[in-house]
This record gives sequence, structure tokens and C-alpha cells, in this order.
Amino acid sequence: MTAMEAVERSLAAIAAQGRDGIWISLVEPEAARARAAEVDRRVAAGEDLPLAGRTLAVKDNIDVAGLPTTAGCPAYAFQPETDAPVVRALLDAGAVVMGKTNMDQFATGLVGVRSPYGVTPNVRWPGLISGGSSSGSAAAIAAGMVDLALGTDTAGSGRVPAAANALVGVKPTRGRLSMGGVVPACRSLDCVSVLAETVELASLAADIASSTPVGDEDPWRRTPDELPAPDPARGLRIGVPSAASLTFDGDPDGASRFDAATRSVLAAEAADGGSVPVDLAPFLAVARLLYEGAFVAERYDAVGGFIEAHRDAVDPVVRDIVLRAGQLRAFEVFRDQTEVAHHARSLARVWDRIDVLVVPSVPRLPTVAEVEAEPIDVNAMVGTYTNFVNLLDLAAVTIPVPTALDGPDHPPTSVTLIGPAWSDALLAGVAAGVASSAAAPAVLA
Amino acid sequence: MTAMEAVERSLAAIAAQGRDGIWISLVEPEAARARAAEVDRRVAAGEDLPLAGRTLAVKDNIDVAGLPTTAGCPAYAFQPETDAPVVRALLDAGAVVMGKTNMDQFATGLVGVRSPYGVTPNVRWPGLISGGSSSGSAAAIAAGMVDLALGTDTAGSGRVPAAANALVGVKPTRGRLSMGGVVPACRSLDCVSVLAETVELASLAADIASSTPVGDEDPWRRTPDELPAPDPARGLRIGVPSAASLTFDGDPDGASRFDAATRSVLAAEAADGGSVPVDLAPFLAVARLLYEGAFVAERYDAVGGFIEAHRDAVDPVVRDIVLRAGQLRAFEVFRDQTEVAHHARSLARVWDRIDVLVVPSVPRLPTVAEVEAEPIDVNAMVGTYTNFVNLLDLAAVTIPVPTALDGPDHPPTSVTLIGPAWSDALLAGVAAGVASSAAAPAVLA
Repeated sequence: MTAMEAVERSLAAIAAQGRDGIWISLVEPEAARARAAEVDRRVAAGEDLPLAGRTLAVKDNIDVAGLPTTAGCPAYAFQPETDAPVVRALLDAGAVVMGKTNMDQFATGLVGVRSPYGVTPNVRWPGLISGGSSSGSAAAIAAGMVDLALGTDTAGSGRVPAAANALVGVKPTRGRLSMGGVVPACRSLDCVSVLAETVELASLAADIASSTPVGDEDPWRRTPDELPAPDPARGLRIGVPSAASLTFDGDPDGASRFDAATRSVLAAEAADGGSVPVDLAPFLAVARLLYEGAFVAERYDAVGGFIEAHRDAVDPVVRDIVLRAGQLRAFEVFRDQTEVAHHARSLARVWDRIDVLVVPSVPRLPTVAEVEAEPIDVNAMVGTYTNFVNLLDLAAVTIPVPTALDGPDHPPTSVTLIGPAWSDALLAGVAAGVASSAAAPAVLA
Repeated sequence: MTAMEAVERSLAAIAAQGRDGIWISLVEPEAARARAAEVDRRVAAGEDLPLAGRTLAVKDNIDVAGLPTTAGCPAYAFQPETDAPVVRALLDAGAVVMGKTNMDQFATGLVGVRSPYGVTPNVRWPGLISGGSSSGSAAAIAAGMVDLALGTDTAGSGRVPAAANALVGVKPTRGRLSMGGVVPACRSLDCVSVLAETVELASLAADIASSTPVGDEDPWRRTPDELPAPDPARGLRIGVPSAASLTFDGDPDGASRFDAATRSVLAAEAADGGSVPVDLAPFLAVARLLYEGAFVAERYDAVGGFIEAHRDAVDPVVRDIVLRAGQLRAFEVFRDQTEVAHHARSLARVWDRIDVLVVPSVPRLPTVAEVEAEPIDVNAMVGTYTNFVNLLDLAAVTIPVPTALDGPDHPPTSVTLIGPAWSDALLAGVAAGVASSAAAPAVLA
């Protein structure tokens, strides 16, 4: 498909379905067509543009020159002069950006409900959340409006929306992609995430986005460590959580669906080293620290001053979370950082026994109505299996793994593959293998 | 010298000069002799004990089985059941511990004055501070009571006492030595430091102390990174602070003494790559964050609860510092960690231009009377060139570099050699080279 064909398809899908709850701002159609024409010219001239023919949505906390950055808050909006480095890298590779997507305000939420731009619809499973905070990015792909979307993932915002929309979500190693030109949530934990229909496309885009020079715009950016490859003689070992350390928040089918999906993972060609039981409890203890501990105060550092000055212009749930976090005391940060360090020290040994950990992406996907009734508790439940990943400096890829137990009223079972920092390529390879075998009917039986 | 001879000499020196202000507790003479006899037996049996014949003092925030750990506060005292791993490693290598040394309470201070066990005397230059917080460890060596001493160095407590007593102070890379069995000051920054008369002995002891297994007792312990060796064709490049970025707190001879000492450093055989000017201002900006920012709140996490419960049993200067730090807010920690990360990012490039940075160990060594008159400001002045080192994840070695300008009323000029994390061996080699050339009369002229 040419870039122009992709853009026309994208424009048609947006025109047909409308922007409500998905988009905060859109590129003018003529501007998108002009960019597409330019990409097609470069390709015709022989340039190798790996993302030519791909349309892109960008979460509205990531700068795209020419469109405002709102972070989901109209009063916060500003006009960036330049693209964020990650956006620039994708455009340089031939992607055409179509607009900026809706999100939980200031990326504070996993639900896609905390936005003055409206609740992001789950276009495939109406009534369920689209996930968050990168809710619009996932919905734009699910609605067929774009091929590729950027989100950000601090607590799980690249993984939960992927799970809610049956997409692939790549949560790169912290510091792998530049956070320049991104409105921070928790600077020391934030990651740009990539969403797409396939592992191949999401991983390719993440690789391209990671290729920008390490500059001063992001002090937490890191150069990659070399990770030893799994021992070929031993094969790739998959860590599977012990049943006792799992929760599905009361979903009666949760355990059997995850079990079926895990069997698909283990049946994939890549997973040739078998399964190893892992107690997830200490991981979940770290996850709870992200919201219940002092780490949330980093959000006050990012936007607390703005919220103090614009109390009435901010989503009340987000406002209360951030302002309460502003009252936490400094010693609690060091206490919690020490506790995470203790967990990290002992959990580092888990990676001597396994290469990849598979977890449910969410315990259970709630409805928008549930979130509106219990905005804090339901949000926390959704982050059960995601919140520990950045605190423990891990990488993750979320993929749908359809099972025979999946009904029509909710998305296919989604699992998240987790590995140590800089295991991104390994995770992508395993995820691709799982996706191709999980699609085979034999595995679904 | 046999271990027994070393112990007898140590016991005689302690008996002759007294323990006041230097020791908090002493090993019973018969117990020390018994240990010395055991070491001598093992050596006679053919064992290679690299620290045989060396007596050891241990700062009283580091556990030695059989002696209380007070951290400079009688009400805090407890009886540890086991030696701290670093102590155990030195004893296993043949050192004989003589006792526990006085310190600024809870390692909060660089002055050796904040202790109910008395002001630590500067035994060679009476009236001047002995430095801190490892004041007694340095004084015990300076008084000829031990060969070797352990301190801790968060802000500069292994370097300032070395400077005040014309000793060598090794401040290892953060996480190189286990902090197990050490009362924390700022857990994420604390290092065990090693003091001795010579670079060779201090480095040997640091190497031995670093050899303990990485265990769960210290979550901030790290396994070493490989550092690329300096390019032999280029030689070892010494960074020298630009004159405008230096302060000597009004000492009229400070600049010329440091200049003379720097020339000695550059004349050393190891420094064959010449000098490179370095603007120290951003380093000093980081240094100020250690006390003026939110990092001090980590001290509240360590001992704030105890101090709240024992207000009248605590040094009033230490109490006020720690309790004030307890009021700081959590977002300020993230703000300051981000600021340090920004500085670290830009300062990392300095290490592309130089291999080792040389700085004055202190701007000026104050008298005890000055510290008592202005306990906070004079303490902060003393830490000018030390406080940034652990925040920026650097290693350091402090050495005396006598100059012709040094008068009899203060210690010889002291400089600190600084390198990136895991440059410990490089720094020790350079320091040894400087120490041997600096002792040559030609360099002193």
C-alpha cells in the first residue's frame, strides 16, 4: 500500500466513525496527503523507508509540531515547535501522523475515562474500557484509523490499552526511547510505548524510535547493555506464575483462560526450554508500591504546580491523586526506593531460572460504568500485573493469545511477556512466535 | 612485624595517649593479643594473610561482634551478633581490630565535633578539626594507634578526615563494598571508606573488603562494570579545575598550595597525558544539592524514628538537621533526583576528555572553635569538593601532596583524585604514583 492509499484509508475511517473520545486533534487532511505524497516520492526515488505506507497516531502528551500538546487537559495546552525525537524518528522512516489521541489526563490512569475530551470508546467491545492512559492510541488502531500508535507507559499505559483492544503493546526498557518532548508523569519511570496489530510492526517501530542519539533532552535515557542470549542448549525457559499468586478479581473464567493462553505460549516454537513456576507475590508487592507508596509524588513534581494553579480546569480524580501525592514526605520516597531495591535484589535471581515471565495483562477488564463508580480501586485492580514492571526495570510485550474459552463479549485473552532490562529483542522474538502459533487452530482447541 | 608486635605497639600507643575523643570502645588487650597470636600461628603455618601484622580501627557505625555499635549515640547502642561483611573480610585477611572509633553522630557531619563522646582531637595539628564523620578512625591512625581504619563516606567522611590528618582515604565506587552491618546515613549513597598512611595499604584493604559475596544484606551493592582502560597512546589525562571555579574560603594560600600540589600530580609518571581544564561549577552545584536539597531526607528514613523518640539523647545539631529533613516533601526528592540526572548526563561527557579529575580535598580546614561557632555553615564549606562525588556515582582517593608552601600549623596540602564509577584501580595506581613522586624533594622545590 502506498502512503497515499494508507492516508486515504485512514481519513475515510475517521470520517466514517468520528473522532469522539479517540482524537484530541487531527492533522488537516490536505497536510496528511502532502506528507504521504512526499513519502511516496522518496520511496519512488529509491529510498528505503521501513514505515512507508503506515499511518500513525500519537498520544497527546507527546509533541508533534503543528498540533497542540494537551496531555488531556485543555488548560495545559501548548504549541510545540518541534516533534518529540521518537515521533521524528518514525516520520523520518516514512510514517504519516494523522493526529493526537485522547488519554487519561496527565497520563494518570489506566482506564481511558479521566479526560475532558470524553471517555474513549472500546470500539470492538462496547461498554468495556479502552484501557489507559493511552486509550485513544489503542482505539485509533482498533477502529482501523491508523496502523501504528505511540503511547506512554509508566504504570501500564502501553499494555492495558493493548489488552483492551486485542493489540500488541511494546513497553520498551526504561531509557531505551527518548522521553524528550513528552509531558512527564513520573520522569524516572516513564517509557514511550508502541501499539500495533502485529508484533512485527510494533517492534519495528520501537526499534526505529530507539535509534535517536542520546542527548540532553532526557536525563534518564540510557545506552543499551548487552544481555547474554539464552543458552541454546537449554532452550528458552518461560516463567509461569503459580496459581496461588494470581488474581482475576472474581472473573470466574480468568484462571482457565490464562492457563489456556499460557499453554499456547509454551507451545510456541521459541519456548523450547519449558516452563518454570514463579511466585508472583513479591512482584505484586512492588506493584502496590507504585500507587500506595511515595512514587506517585513524582507526578506532583511533573504537574503539581500547574494543578495547584488550575484546580477547576483539571479532572477531579486526577487532581485529587496528584495533590494528595504532593503532601507525601521525602523520607517516604527513600523508604520505598529501598524497599524496591530489596525486592529487585532478590527478584534478580528469578532471571537466573527463567528467560521470560508470562503474566495476565490485566486480572479482568472492567466496564466504563465500573470505573466511574469506583475510580480509584478499579484502576488499581487493572494495574495489578503492570505496575511493577518499570519499578523493577523490566521490559514487556503485551499480545493477544486467543483461547477457546474467549467469549464474544470481551477481547481475547491477553498476556504480557516480561524480561529483564534490554531483553526487548528477545521478547519481540518470543512474542512473534507465540502470535503465529496462537493463531493456529490446533492450539486453540 | 608480627601481628603480636603490631598489637603491642597499638596497645602501647593507646595507653600512652589515651582514648579521649578517638575511641568509643576498645577490644580487651588480652582478646587482641589472642587474635594476634592466632594470626601469627596461621602465618607460621604457611597461610597467606595479606593484612597480617596490621591493626584496625572501625568506625562505630560498622558492626564488630563483641563490641557495641553506637553510631555515636549511647542511647542508640546495640550489640551486633556478627561482624559486618567488610570487617569480616579484613579480619579473615589477618587484620586485628583494636576498637570502635568516635564519629559525628549518625555519620551526620564532616567535622568530628558532633559527638557526645567528645570532640575528636587533631593529634598532629591541635586546634584544627580531625574531619568527619570518620574522625576517630583518622585520628587513631594519625596517633600511631592502628595501621588501618574503616570509615563511611556519604558526603565526604572518608576524604575530609584523611585530609585533616595527612592520610590516604579511599572512597570506593558506590556499591563496591557491602553496606551490610553498617548503620545507614543515606542508604542509597553510603560507602564504606578505608583510611591508611599509604595508598598501597588503603587500596589493598579496600580490595579485600570488596571481595565479599553480593548478598541480600545490602540492596544497593553492585557487581563491577568493566571500565575501558585509558588509551596508552594518549596517556592518562588529568582534569584540573579552572581557577575561576575554585574556592578556598578566604585562605590566602589555598590557590597557590593547590596549584603546587596539582603540579606534583601532573609531574607523576602516571599522568602522562597532560592536564585538561575542567569547569568545576556544575559539580559544585550538585554538591550543594546534597545538603540544601531533599537528599538529606534519606537520613530521616534511616534514624528519624529513633530521634523522634529520643530527642534529648541526641546531639542537638544532628537532631535539628534530621528532624528538619523529615519535613521535606516527597516531590522535592524527585525534583532533585531529576536535577542530578541532568547534571550527570552533561558531566558524563567530562570523562571523554579526562581520565582523572583532581580537586582540593577541602577548601580550607577549619578549627574546632570555628565549627562550634557556626556548626552548619562551616560544615557545608568543608564538603564543597566532596559532596558531589556519591551523587554523581564517582570514585575517589584522597592523598596528601606536600608542597613547599605548607606551613607547620596545618596539614600538608591534600588533593582528591576522582574518576567515574569502577575507576577504583585506576585511581589507586595514579595516587600511588603521585605519592611516590610528591615525596621526592625535587617536586617540593
